Amino acid sequence: MPQSNPQRPNPVQPADDAARALAQGLLAANHAALSCLEPETGAPLISRIAFGLCPQGLPLTLISGLAPHFTALTADPRCSVMLTTAMEKGDPLTHPRLMLRAHARFVRPDDPERAALRAHWLKGHPKATLYVDFPDFAFVRLIPESGLLNAGFARAFRLTPQDLRA
Amino acid sequence: MPQSNPQRPNPVQPADDAARALAQGLLAANHAALSCLEPETGAPLISRIAFGLCPQGLPLTLISGLAPHFTALTADPRCSVMLTTAMEKGDPLTHPRLMLRAHARFVRPDDPERAALRAHWLKGHPKATLYVDFPDFAFVRLIPESGLLNAGFARAFRLTPQDLRA
Repeated sequence: MPQSNPQRPNPVQPADDAARALAQGLLAANHAALSCLEPETGAPLISRIAFGLCPQGLPLTLISGLAPHFTALTADPRCSVMLTTAMEKGDPLTHPRLMLRAHARFVRPDDPERAALRAHWLKGHPKATLYVDFPDFAFVRLIPESGLLNAGFARAFRLTPQDLRA
Repeated sequence: MPQSNPQRPNPVQPADDAARALAQGLLAANHAALSCLEPETGAPLISRIAFGLCPQGLPLTLISGLAPHFTALTADPRCSVMLTTAMEKGDPLTHPRLMLRAHARFVRPDDPERAALRAHWLKGHPKATLYVDFPDFAFVRLIPESGLLNAGFARAFRLTPQDLRA
């Protein structure tokens, strides 16, 4: 089997102010890539999701019951989320991206916070007006456990949930 | 727990020529999002990877032994890959993206095919010249098992490995 090379140091550093600011910028994305687990096999799934922050600055998505990740997150809330910037030019491996380890918490239709989440979400995602109230759609909080900011080749930072608060 | 709504039909259709052509275009991406499994916990990981095709038109990546997904794919080759286009404007959920269910197969340094993979890769990823021969880097084939093309809201197509051949 291939082996990683112990002679090159692990480049992951604790977050500094510049890393926290870069992460905050990435948290303003309106979409993300989501990794979760297929319920029957435990195999990794990937999908694009709408992304936003709740009024308190914590990650949130709105997903359809038709999406495979809806069923997956219902069965196992563990997930990872990747946020990127729109890429202009150059090597995509040098563009910053933020990976969050998170767990999903569905917001029930009768949750007293739903109205505020809905109003805030529609400000950032006006087209969601068309489907936000479909009965199979749900808001899902993506509660971060840790973050990894990759700011370019061999430049990575570990972020705590506190570092990630907008 | 939330339930998906059985009253809205599943919109996934078999691929047609237009879907195959769109998928081929997405397979020309030079990077991708990768979902794989953390070895110790089975939790879903996500990362950005370099992406290309081998001379036979099958998906390939080049990864560093320092990357968490290197260790993960060594332990469990199951993965999913998402390919997207550079996004210009508009709702990101209406932009096409291709999700591949795949398994990873590492290319050993002494694999007789490595020289041809390396030469082909460097044509599409010239900056990789800087690190392609580092001893902890490896080419990894991402052998597709199936594909799901999402071509916009409620427009999705299932693709076979044959549909995905460039």
